[in-house]
Amino acid sequence: MEFAAYFPVWDKLTPQQQQRINGVIEHRTVKKGTYIHDSSSECLGLVMVKKGQLRTYILSEDGREITFSRLFEYDVSLLSASCVMPDMQFNVMIEAEKDTEFWSIPACLFKNLMEESLAVSNYARDLLSSNFTELMWLMEQIMWKSFDKRLAAFLLEESAIEGSSSLKITHERIAGHMGTAREVVTRMLRYFQSEGMVKLTRGTIEITDKKKLESLCT
Amino acid sequence: MEFAAYFPVWDKLTPQQQQRINGVIEHRTVKKGTYIHDSSSECLGLVMVKKGQLRTYILSEDGREITFSRLFEYDVSLLSASCVMPDMQFNVMIEAEKDTEFWSIPACLFKNLMEESLAVSNYARDLLSSNFTELMWLMEQIMWKSFDKRLAAFLLEESAIEGSSSLKITHERIAGHMGTAREVVTRMLRYFQSEGMVKLTRGTIEITDKKKLESLCT
Repeated sequence: MEFAAYFPVWDKLTPQQQQRINGVIEHRTVKKGTYIHDSSSECLGLVMVKKGQLRTYILSEDGREITFSRLFEYDVSLLSASCVMPDMQFNVMIEAEKDTEFWSIPACLFKNLMEESLAVSNYARDLLSSNFTELMWLMEQIMWKSFDKRLAAFLLEESAIEGSSSLKITHERIAGHMGTAREVVTRMLRYFQSEGMVKLTRGTIEITDKKKLESLCT
Repeated sequence: MEFAAYFPVWDKLTPQQQQRINGVIEHRTVKKGTYIHDSSSECLGLVMVKKGQLRTYILSEDGREITFSRLFEYDVSLLSASCVMPDMQFNVMIEAEKDTEFWSIPACLFKNLMEESLAVSNYARDLLSSNFTELMWLMEQIMWKSFDKRLAAFLLEESAIEGSSSLKITHERIAGHMGTAREVVTRMLRYFQSEGMVKLTRGTIEITDKKKLESLCT
């Protein structure tokens, strides 16, 4: 029951509830680039990340994307169980950004647990409320922050995630994260380069002046 | 206990819990234009609308607004109790768009009820999940729908709320709903007028071709 450490309310379940989870929990290992959840497939359930990195994003009807959140070790995603929430209907996709290992508790069992256990119900509400805040933050960014600030913040976050100032990421891919067109990203990156903040080479963006990039974000 | 009909989980509470609510619930009548909640004031708690119309909106640091939702009779707002949710930190404002009568259950009591009653916890989660979906929808609109479609949808919604094709609303006010500048609204309304969809007179927008306006939204 290694996953118990990854499921914060485990200790608050009855032995019987724990047994029901044990009976159906799935453990999966997926390669980088694997789509583990989309709105057309069956609802995945509650996802708990053991290792790796997942990206949740929203997809428009005409195929445009915007990154909603990143999940790392010990993170739990309720969005992959959105089917169990009434009125939760939207295109949330989840893909593995790195080779990833995770557990999932099937949606129907999780739904039952929410309905019978106060601890699980409160936990799910807390997850949801933190998702709500993230979404609100994202919307404020999009509405009211100019693109240069958002791109600077994105590059700094990527650099922190990767632990490197040299980012192997295409302009197309960045556009997908930020809900914009590739051209817009390329134009702004060239401006950043002209200001000495980054250096662009084929397939790589190197942050050359972190401080200046950070000053853009404030 | 007239408000019981406005609080969907009332019947699932213990007599003691009901009594605690009875002891502290507030009934208020406010005039159109009153701000009943903002992020700097004390947390209002769970709001249940008896009569009238409330608008919840988000405010940026530099004073720009975007309407998040409208609350009518029997609607319940959890956003006014956002202080009881962990990690819920954002500037949600609530104002009365019409003379409004509502009840509020103080935040601290509601928080306690969520923690001790499975019914209340599940109910709060359902409210939150439907808020989340609304916010997601709003973001998709902003990200991916062009402004003409959004404005057409807004005018039609206003018309439905007011039960009239003649809307008494300023361009400034519409801009506040939609998170944009007054000029942008004026420009688009003039275009709508040139297409025969609306007629603009001082302080009033009259919808003259509802079908054409609707066809824009699809």
